[in-house]
Amino acid sequence: MKLDLNSDLGESFGAWTMGNDEAMLDIVTSANIACGFHAGDPLVMHNTMVAAGQRGVSIGAHPSFLDLWGFGRRPIQGDRPEDIEKMVIYQIGAAAALAQSVGLRLAHVKTHGSLGNMAMVDPDLARAVARATRAVDRDLILVVMPGLALEKAGLAEGLLVAREIYADRTYDDDGNLTSRKKPGAVIEDADFATKRILSMLDDGAITTVTGKRLPVSIDTICVHGDNAHAVAMASSLRGALETAGCTIAPFPSFLRA
Amino acid sequence: MKLDLNSDLGESFGAWTMGNDEAMLDIVTSANIACGFHAGDPLVMHNTMVAAGQRGVSIGAHPSFLDLWGFGRRPIQGDRPEDIEKMVIYQIGAAAALAQSVGLRLAHVKTHGSLGNMAMVDPDLARAVARATRAVDRDLILVVMPGLALEKAGLAEGLLVAREIYADRTYDDDGNLTSRKKPGAVIEDADFATKRILSMLDDGAITTVTGKRLPVSIDTICVHGDNAHAVAMASSLRGALETAGCTIAPFPSFLRA
Amino acid sequence: MKLDLNSDLGESFGAWTMGNDEAMLDIVTSANIACGFHAGDPLVMHNTMVAAGQRGVSIGAHPSFLDLWGFGRRPIQGDRPEDIEKMVIYQIGAAAALAQSVGLRLAHVKTHGSLGNMAMVDPDLARAVARATRAVDRDLILVVMPGLALEKAGLAEGLLVAREIYADRTYDDDGNLTSRKKPGAVIEDADFATKRILSMLDDGAITTVTGKRLPVSIDTICVHGDNAHAVAMASSLRGALETAGCTIAPFPSFLRA
Amino acid sequence: MKLDLNSDLGESFGAWTMGNDEAMLDIVTSANIACGFHAGDPLVMHNTMVAAGQRGVSIGAHPSFLDLWGFGRRPIQGDRPEDIEKMVIYQIGAAAALAQSVGLRLAHVKTHGSLGNMAMVDPDLARAVARATRAVDRDLILVVMPGLALEKAGLAEGLLVAREIYADRTYDDDGNLTSRKKPGAVIEDADFATKRILSMLDDGAITTVTGKRLPVSIDTICVHGDNAHAVAMASSLRGALETAGCTIAPFPSFLRA
Repeated sequence: MKLDLNSDLGESFGAWTMGNDEAMLDIVTSANIACGFHAGDPLVMHNTMVAAGQRGVSIGAHPSFLDLWGFGRRPIQGDRPEDIEKMVIYQIGAAAALAQSVGLRLAHVKTHGSLGNMAMVDPDLARAVARATRAVDRDLILVVMPGLALEKAGLAEGLLVAREIYADRTYDDDGNLTSRKKPGAVIEDADFATKRILSMLDDGAITTVTGKRLPVSIDTICVHGDNAHAVAMASSLRGALETAGCTIAPFPSFLRA
Repeated sequence: MKLDLNSDLGESFGAWTMGNDEAMLDIVTSANIACGFHAGDPLVMHNTMVAAGQRGVSIGAHPSFLDLWGFGRRPIQGDRPEDIEKMVIYQIGAAAALAQSVGLRLAHVKTHGSLGNMAMVDPDLARAVARATRAVDRDLILVVMPGLALEKAGLAEGLLVAREIYADRTYDDDGNLTSRKKPGAVIEDADFATKRILSMLDDGAITTVTGKRLPVSIDTICVHGDNAHAVAMASSLRGALETAGCTIAPFPSFLRA
Repeated sequence: MKLDLNSDLGESFGAWTMGNDEAMLDIVTSANIACGFHAGDPLVMHNTMVAAGQRGVSIGAHPSFLDLWGFGRRPIQGDRPEDIEKMVIYQIGAAAALAQSVGLRLAHVKTHGSLGNMAMVDPDLARAVARATRAVDRDLILVVMPGLALEKAGLAEGLLVAREIYADRTYDDDGNLTSRKKPGAVIEDADFATKRILSMLDDGAITTVTGKRLPVSIDTICVHGDNAHAVAMASSLRGALETAGCTIAPFPSFLRA
Repeated sequence: MKLDLNSDLGESFGAWTMGNDEAMLDIVTSANIACGFHAGDPLVMHNTMVAAGQRGVSIGAHPSFLDLWGFGRRPIQGDRPEDIEKMVIYQIGAAAALAQSVGLRLAHVKTHGSLGNMAMVDPDLARAVARATRAVDRDLILVVMPGLALEKAGLAEGLLVAREIYADRTYDDDGNLTSRKKPGAVIEDADFATKRILSMLDDGAITTVTGKRLPVSIDTICVHGDNAHAVAMASSLRGALETAGCTIAPFPSFLRA
């Protein structure tokens, strides 16, 4: 089985550092690069892309609401989907140009934080994100949570989609992540997270907090890297997946096959 | 003689409106579109591009320092040219993607405000701007003030350059604009500005505040549109140029010939 | 009857101008000064305060979500009320210091845009705003929509409250404004707006879109000044109120009596 | 001898953490609290003030240019001193209100980064900073580098001044810091920094990079806390000063005596 590991990287900003990108880039196969709206700045984007390219890690744009203070995690209501579409085009375009300037090419787009949460369940917003992605480059792969609005929108716009599951988050019965605010929503035990992922891969389904089984395709697993703990979890997970016989590779290598 | 008229447009931001873009787009042949760093936002950029496209006005990116509060007019020191290069790539890339999403293509890049002022005289910064432009698209034309560092840098990077003069600003003996802070630096009399431009075109030279004559090629004239007065000046200037036998057309149409 | 007229002013930002503050300051008796989060900057705040002081117009802080792009009109979810409390203290404190530096004193606080909308109906957020106001100065008057959560919170925190109604907006049966997005939510006819206000004052009640009557105290009427039309409406309203025998004066002058 | 140790704290922002404020607050006696312009946000400011108050650490405002991206370290040219004055009032006022809301009072003002560098040498800017400080609270102590423009301006405005020297930076012959960009400008060896400080205190003079001796009063020593190394240096320095017989206490306790 072929699997990708993706992580949100390039989330430093100016004088502030977030996470341990170098360590994570040694583990993952796809990097979601913050585009300056929730984190990242042109120099951080550039440096992260160069570091990814040196390791053969595939890169994508990670657009967000414009909200540095809230790190893109706060739902911002009231914009029309067609206006958010321009905001997403802007960010993907900026990232695509920086990638091109170092001889790379964006392989994918993954929405960040509350923009992602909203796009997973709002069909109009999902279509806006898919249209924005296609407008910049029809070959961009849209990373989606399987079974939700963004997957449908990506397919409707003729995009390749990469279906992802989360190693460190629990799911509700709709196939969406449970709120970070709920106790237990974030899994911190690396062994438990790893076993859970292996079980879901084996089963071809997400298991929800109520025990419900949601059959899904799985192309990539999202791992976080914003603390030392997270790096350990990602490393443990990769090791376990390889031991279990998975080939860990960037999703474009098998989705485009 | 073929001449382009260019103007800085798309400088509204969110709820705030700047200038009269619709009126200016009926007069000019090239629009420099603010890229969100000193003005403009993705929606303003989109709307300005659509309005330009409807009128056959050629569009370009107008990158700046990140300084909404100061409208990009404040010199921000201390960044390395190679870092500013990424900042410029980011902005051009964002604009290029928005242009592409409405079926247009950026034709040029013109630096805004103090970034432009600094790039005209700092060879390292000028090279950074030229490299950034080329990195996004080798066919982009770099708008420069003739005789200054950015012109040299653009040519050294193999870019086409469009040489511009200003209708409403005076020149010092170095061929640079006199400071806005000096009395008389901004010309407000439309007739005077028009006669001055016709004289410079006729002479093939800039006349400086001390009366010195600096021979230059002239491809485009920059006109401002941030008030009703400015619109009248631009309109008067275009009329006078046409009466004098100039063909007013986007500079890509004659520079690429 | 004594009445105050208040308006949201100082909403320019850097190079961008919003509304006609000078004209409005000749009409209103209280100015809500933007605090830099949705509009305004320290210089705009200073200039607006000086202009208000010269005319004897009472001034207050107009805190908002941090959202220049959205002009504070977009609901930003996910902050805890106790965190928003600090954000409001910050803004009131900044405004209070600028007022003091020109020999003035803030008389009131009025929440802006979506922060205001949310504080009117969310008791926890309303308490946070009231606590923030009291924390800076117990003598600050809190401007509220009568009958909603913020009025209760202000009274519970021991603050004086000024009850306001809107000249140019319609009301739903909860006593809240109808959404700007609904047709007819914004009243543009000055005569109609004026007659409606006189009728509500006469009746001592708000009339809702369904014709329901909500008895309220009325201390101040909010008039907008962001276009020429609005200035005309404000002027017409003030004239009609004076003709009807109202004394138009800053609310501190009669609320503190 | 009585001495204060001050440090720039509260420089986290939103999701990003800077330095180890808790550790530094156990060492220093005065905390310069970032005001949201180069770092800090209302919640970070609040939390830092509470943590300082719990330890009896005196607090001050640390105003800056508005430059989150550049962390306030980039000189921003082109603002008039009287405009920067409003920007400084805004920040001090915001900090003063947050301090008051937790039962504390600002004791001092110290300019940050390039605003500080510029105010040390530009008499007009120095006066603007001193006026801004006095406008908010005449009892605020202005932290200055001895012998430079800001000291003179503070005294001219009738403010108490606290003269500071830097533990980890070298001086040029004007009594100003050497540029961070010069090799050796930042001292990283804790023992060397400590011995150097003890020698300067003993001598009552700054020693410059050319060996020149500049006699000065010394009230406070600035120690940085933005990495583990820095915390160790601050701790070592405090120990050495106490061993040498210094009483380490907040400067208001002895300057106001």
